[in-house]
Amino acid sequence: MTDDPLVALAERLQDICVLRGITVGTAESCTGGLIAHVLTEVPGSSGYFAGGIVSYSNAIKERDLGVAADVIARHGAVSAQTARAMATGARIRLGVDVAVSVTGIAGPGGGSDEKPVGLTYVGVADRDGVDVRRFAWTGDRTANKRSSAAAALTLLIERLEDDGE
Amino acid sequence: MTDDPLVALAERLQDICVLRGITVGTAESCTGGLIAHVLTEVPGSSGYFAGGIVSYSNAIKERDLGVAADVIARHGAVSAQTARAMATGARIRLGVDVAVSVTGIAGPGGGSDEKPVGLTYVGVADRDGVDVRRFAWTGDRTANKRSSAAAALTLLIERLEDDGE
Repeated sequence: MTDDPLVALAERLQDICVLRGITVGTAESCTGGLIAHVLTEVPGSSGYFAGGIVSYSNAIKERDLGVAADVIARHGAVSAQTARAMATGARIRLGVDVAVSVTGIAGPGGGSDEKPVGLTYVGVADRDGVDVRRFAWTGDRTANKRSSAAAALTLLIERLEDDGE
Repeated sequence: MTDDPLVALAERLQDICVLRGITVGTAESCTGGLIAHVLTEVPGSSGYFAGGIVSYSNAIKERDLGVAADVIARHGAVSAQTARAMATGARIRLGVDVAVSVTGIAGPGGGSDEKPVGLTYVGVADRDGVDVRRFAWTGDRTANKRSSAAAALTLLIERLEDDGE
């Protein structure tokens, strides 16, 4: 069907969600809309994908996703805590069953010794809680965005498959 | 710099916005996050791109962009009126200087005699008001999304260039 492995993941996610009547939303920082774009490449995606928020600025993370300013001030926008708050916020704000969040440093700028380029956190929130995973990509900006999107889609699929057993 | 004409448009937009200190936000329906993804392919895009809302469902158009339910009920989600409301809503909700909106029928499903696949409205809102344009694409889903994104970026650039004269 598709040559793009990201779209293949999106097709698999869509099959699971449509079959089980699950709605999905996204909260994207460093992927900048790539996940939503990939999900909506698949015809019929409106059957389960409600939409998403691209929270590139901290103001949008706070206002539109409900991330506490204190969480960002204490842990940084690129942190497990912010990824967690983005995912739970998106689930509530978007009114969906499952929400995925991504926050990271795509590069080439923005890195530091403590938080190098490629550091990325992915969160998945459902009715049972939130899982957050940490990744350290080593590609360029485009490759890091794609790696983050693949990780987010894979985590979503794993979570739904675990839940369906 | 880039082989992708969409990213070339994003680079041009970024140059204008960074130079003039203009912030930009997006409200995407049929493009599904593609515009935000393209803008964030360019390093330094966080210097002017605040973020966006992918309002795939009507509920998100209403709740997160402030589109009146009555506008969608009377004119449809794919209409000049909804594109206008999405752009003005995004400008306020995202707290940006200029917002662009896209609503259309990417296909292959969802078309009708009155509103065929490919019908797309693009809106650009700034402090002076909103412009809306109508397009009728004839490609497949992926091509229609890309055509809509190119139209949106071109309108944004034209609006800012007119304004800067």
